[in-house]
Amino acid sequence: MPFGKLSDQKAREIVPGFYGKFVHTDRMTVSYWTIDAGALLPEHRHPHEQITTVIEGQLELTVAGETQVLGPLEIAVIPGDTVHAGRAVTDCLVIDVFQPARDDYR
Amino acid sequence: MPFGKLSDQKAREIVPGFYGKFVHTDRMTVSYWTIDAGALLPEHRHPHEQITTVIEGQLELTVAGETQVLGPLEIAVIPGDTVHAGRAVTDCLVIDVFQPARDDYR
Repeated sequence: MPFGKLSDQKAREIVPGFYGKFVHTDRMTVSYWTIDAGALLPEHRHPHEQITTVIEGQLELTVAGETQVLGPLEIAVIPGDTVHAGRAVTDCLVIDVFQPARDDYR
Repeated sequence: MPFGKLSDQKAREIVPGFYGKFVHTDRMTVSYWTIDAGALLPEHRHPHEQITTVIEGQLELTVAGETQVLGPLEIAVIPGDTVHAGRAVTDCLVIDVFQPARDDYR
């Protein structure tokens, strides 16, 4: 079945205030986050490449020590094994893409 | 520089009515499409895996002979080498993710 609706999927709270829905293939993962204003993503790293796109709201991201607040259709490219952290300035809708797939989110 | 704004990138009309902006890493590509109502994506295939997410508007997609109209936060998973085609029912904003990277869009 090639088609799906995110509204059919129950979000999982992966970090307090970060509610994720996930689409996986063998080789990549797309995650769709609704984030509560003020929620904090602690500093972490993972081997996966990540491209973050803010769809709605304002998300403060720190990548390798550089900090920026991203608004709608602003993006961050996070190479594998790069320390990053986040803070939702407002409620947000954010799409992250990971390669390889995030098997820890399956 | 990990951060970018899509508004700083000039869109390229890849297929008539399909205006794309692209973010590439070595291993994947995210493309951001604004599509004019009525524009047609002819039937085609490529070896890359693709995950399509409609952000705004209504996009009719046909994947391996199955057709569905996707609205906001509805998705399609298109395995590599799978024939697919599209038609914008309304003006759309659509995000496609490809693995491996779409070197033909660099």
